[in-house]
Amino acid sequence: MADEDLIWQRERSEPGPDLRILSVRHDWMRHPSGEPLLKRLVLESVDWINIVALTPDGLSVMVKQFRFGIGECTVETAGGMVDPGETPLEAARRELLEETGYGGGEWSSLGAVEPNPAIHPHLCHHFLARDVERIAEPTPGEGEAIRVCLMTLDEIRADVAAGRIRHVLALSALCRAFPLFPLPQPS
Amino acid sequence: MADEDLIWQRERSEPGPDLRILSVRHDWMRHPSGEPLLKRLVLESVDWINIVALTPDGLSVMVKQFRFGIGECTVETAGGMVDPGETPLEAARRELLEETGYGGGEWSSLGAVEPNPAIHPHLCHHFLARDVERIAEPTPGEGEAIRVCLMTLDEIRADVAAGRIRHVLALSALCRAFPLFPLPQPS
Repeated sequence: MADEDLIWQRERSEPGPDLRILSVRHDWMRHPSGEPLLKRLVLESVDWINIVALTPDGLSVMVKQFRFGIGECTVETAGGMVDPGETPLEAARRELLEETGYGGGEWSSLGAVEPNPAIHPHLCHHFLARDVERIAEPTPGEGEAIRVCLMTLDEIRADVAAGRIRHVLALSALCRAFPLFPLPQPS
Repeated sequence: MADEDLIWQRERSEPGPDLRILSVRHDWMRHPSGEPLLKRLVLESVDWINIVALTPDGLSVMVKQFRFGIGECTVETAGGMVDPGETPLEAARRELLEETGYGGGEWSSLGAVEPNPAIHPHLCHHFLARDVERIAEPTPGEGEAIRVCLMTLDEIRADVAAGRIRHVLALSALCRAFPLFPLPQPS
């Protein structure tokens, strides 16, 4: 079946209020059937990246930091935003170095995901970095206070099972590198 | 190590502009070291839910719909928001029935994730529904135009591998029910 009966048409867009890290756009969208015309929210950003980084000993380089949305500390993969002029891979190497002081190693893509296609146009790119080593002091930005955590796969799996690691973008990267979840038995 | 040196203190909050599906709050947060005081964005919502729903034949009940953030159609799990007074499970049963007409079956939790702890306080709850059957006509809301897709696991895995299914919240639910990703070989 073709998708024409699912596709909304954008009649016009208008900018919304300034949220700094996200640009607000309101689109007036016409339902595929012709009616209604609805105002829909789009929150635009540059692309995001995060990294599953492994030392030569097989430890994962993770970060602990306060997250303003939940108002608590999380343990998760290093990550951040793609700056102007950077490729996602360049941003990933920069963010890992800034947040953890780790660099070098062998890098490969673990794919990309839509953080939320209902409201965001941008992607989050996942990377695997093997054999990274500590090559510098971390240089967190003024909005960051970060602790580096070196974790075994068993520790990560225990934190996932206990719900202590539950940032979906971190889990999405980790589950492309490791067997992370026990799967349900067939009924 | 204790986390005191990572924890920011909220000095005050102020409401932001009305975005309808998300409430904007600005928090003034003091860095653990005492300085600086930074304005941080929080986008509040009710909790979200989504569902891996399987027919007695082992087909997954998926939905195809236009997503306003990316401006394209996605194929993903059924899902939505928890309405006032509902439990996440009740919301999941309602959304599956509304979006697909499928119901009944055996339901269990697949856990919950933070859609983005940097900006969102809320969770997305994942459910597995086995042996669901088509018991009604779908009743999409006025903001929805949805096509039901019954998919085999091979079809889902092919769409994931090709990047056609890449909504991270749908992938997060699916990867707790199925082996979804080929894992990299040890180096």
